[in-house]
Amino acid sequence: MRRDGYPSDPELIFLTDGASKGVTHLLNILIRNENDGVLCPIPQYPLYSATIQLVGGTLVPYYLSEEAGWGLDVKEMRSQVLEARKKGITVRGLVFINPGNPTGQCLSEANLRELIQFCYEEHIVLLADEVYQQNIYQDERPFISAKKVLMDMGPPYSNNVELASFHTVSKGYWGECGQRGAYFELTNMHPKTVDELYKVASIALSPNVPGQIFVGLMVNPPKPGDISYPKFAEESKAILDSLRRRAHMMTDGFNSCRNVTCNFTEGAMYSFPKIKLPAAAIAAAKRAGKAPDVFYCLKLLEATGISTVPGSGFGQKEGTFHVRTTILPSEDDIPEVMRMFKTFNEDFMAQYEGPQSRL
Amino acid sequence: MRRDGYPSDPELIFLTDGASKGVTHLLNILIRNENDGVLCPIPQYPLYSATIQLVGGTLVPYYLSEEAGWGLDVKEMRSQVLEARKKGITVRGLVFINPGNPTGQCLSEANLRELIQFCYEEHIVLLADEVYQQNIYQDERPFISAKKVLMDMGPPYSNNVELASFHTVSKGYWGECGQRGAYFELTNMHPKTVDELYKVASIALSPNVPGQIFVGLMVNPPKPGDISYPKFAEESKAILDSLRRRAHMMTDGFNSCRNVTCNFTEGAMYSFPKIKLPAAAIAAAKRAGKAPDVFYCLKLLEATGISTVPGSGFGQKEGTFHVRTTILPSEDDIPEVMRMFKTFNEDFMAQYEGPQSRL
Repeated sequence: MRRDGYPSDPELIFLTDGASKGVTHLLNILIRNENDGVLCPIPQYPLYSATIQLVGGTLVPYYLSEEAGWGLDVKEMRSQVLEARKKGITVRGLVFINPGNPTGQCLSEANLRELIQFCYEEHIVLLADEVYQQNIYQDERPFISAKKVLMDMGPPYSNNVELASFHTVSKGYWGECGQRGAYFELTNMHPKTVDELYKVASIALSPNVPGQIFVGLMVNPPKPGDISYPKFAEESKAILDSLRRRAHMMTDGFNSCRNVTCNFTEGAMYSFPKIKLPAAAIAAAKRAGKAPDVFYCLKLLEATGISTVPGSGFGQKEGTFHVRTTILPSEDDIPEVMRMFKTFNEDFMAQYEGPQSRL
Repeated sequence: MRRDGYPSDPELIFLTDGASKGVTHLLNILIRNENDGVLCPIPQYPLYSATIQLVGGTLVPYYLSEEAGWGLDVKEMRSQVLEARKKGITVRGLVFINPGNPTGQCLSEANLRELIQFCYEEHIVLLADEVYQQNIYQDERPFISAKKVLMDMGPPYSNNVELASFHTVSKGYWGECGQRGAYFELTNMHPKTVDELYKVASIALSPNVPGQIFVGLMVNPPKPGDISYPKFAEESKAILDSLRRRAHMMTDGFNSCRNVTCNFTEGAMYSFPKIKLPAAAIAAAKRAGKAPDVFYCLKLLEATGISTVPGSGFGQKEGTFHVRTTILPSEDDIPEVMRMFKTFNEDFMAQYEGPQSRL
């Protein structure tokens, strides 16, 4: 209500031990067998691919457009739905992550409207992973929830499109991922689906009490006039301001490398730069029995101690290579981290672009 | 090691957010499709029936012998395996709960040996739900772990029978079920199964930190000589002694009713008395559209405020009716609770045995 200006029904809010558990519940309900598909962004957070496989469904990928700042392309989604249908797969759900993980984009209201229109037309349940909703590092596109856009659109969307949205204490300026506190809220969900979710959620009899207390604190933060408000406002602002500066430092650092391009981390906690690798590096990776991005990340780790995750863990367009890193190192350390990265990258490029690489 | 006299391999111990989550992991791995069966005791803790259904397998029931103090009957298990095989079902796992939930029995070493022998012969993975291992209220059959019996038996059992055993901070004298801390330990599990479990467990990236701290405290309680030991020993003994007295009071109370028989709660936290219902009560339940035990429990609730769970929620032999209650009311309250139960039960019997019931 306070966030979106629309009321919430407590009967349609489920508390879960982390947002992952809520996602598992929803996918469990949504997927009947391997002919049920769920659209997921690529790159994606691996929870989705793993859970869809575990519950026996099919992941239907839609590629985010790196050139358009990792925006959602409804045309791409539509063609993937048609493609899936040809294979006998019914697309029943669509996952989107806003702000993006690992891609860091913040979706515009126009983009969300397109998405909702598409789900309405295709009768697809929308799973809105909005766990980074507090982590916003630009002012052009503040976070706007799928529920708010849906309600603003009015009928037939606001009373038809089935939506589950997720939030958690694991991110934001609190980052309490060791507490396992989260919730999901259902909108327009068929009452029988709600009953089924209630049944699945009830298998686990005991809730995580501290996690639920943290959720309570998150959704009821100190308000102006409260004795703790000034300190809360100051601390949360300081954390977000620092993360914003870190997002800029990391993006600028990556983009200062001649073979690296990186979209700005508009939100969430990650940088996902694209690394252009020379043919000789790709060949060397092949000789070493590694994917090229894995090879690059291991060399980076060995040379500098900087631990990153290869883009192949998240999915990336064929022939492109990425590295995922967080913007979470302390602000003071980031200049040195980026300097080390740049030096490593230059040495790597020199090694595999130089004449000796042709041996 | 301290409990069983046999070493444990930390690589084969998985920490989970409550024992239920560990059970879910194991059942997920064990069950491929509806032709895979898991033997479960009847009466059983409903987690098992629900989770087996959720992951798409088949529950193969084995009935506990109420006349033999709810003991395990391996002959019954063997005939159920043959029965299942005729239907094309492969029994891959066996769940047993020791001390029993909701039946409260403590298994003898001889019974456990028979069980292990059976699992060896039938190539069945043993799931040992030992979450009530600290809750023992008699001295004849102290808790003995399946792992200890298995190791004591020596080859070919000790190096072949695949065992997963579960423990938790939710029971015992701590009862911290709001903390979601538990572990399971694997013995003789095929390395590929362990890898698969590791993969499934890794989908959830963040563990519940407070829950893990509680597990640490549980497996490393204060030792003689520690400054906190005397207080710990005194408090835990007081809790267990009180529970033992409560177990006796409840069992005796139930058995003082002419139409009620109740095995002693040797362990765990429950009483599961059998209620003999007159034909007229069964007919009245039918008219009300309720199972006879549900009808009885609702009448009890209305008349006294005592909330119990009908035996049909746990499974019971056709034509028998049970009530499940806990022994957890405060010791001071139990005499009054049992007096109220007895009065209600007498009134109920008078109503449905009397001539007016034939109208």
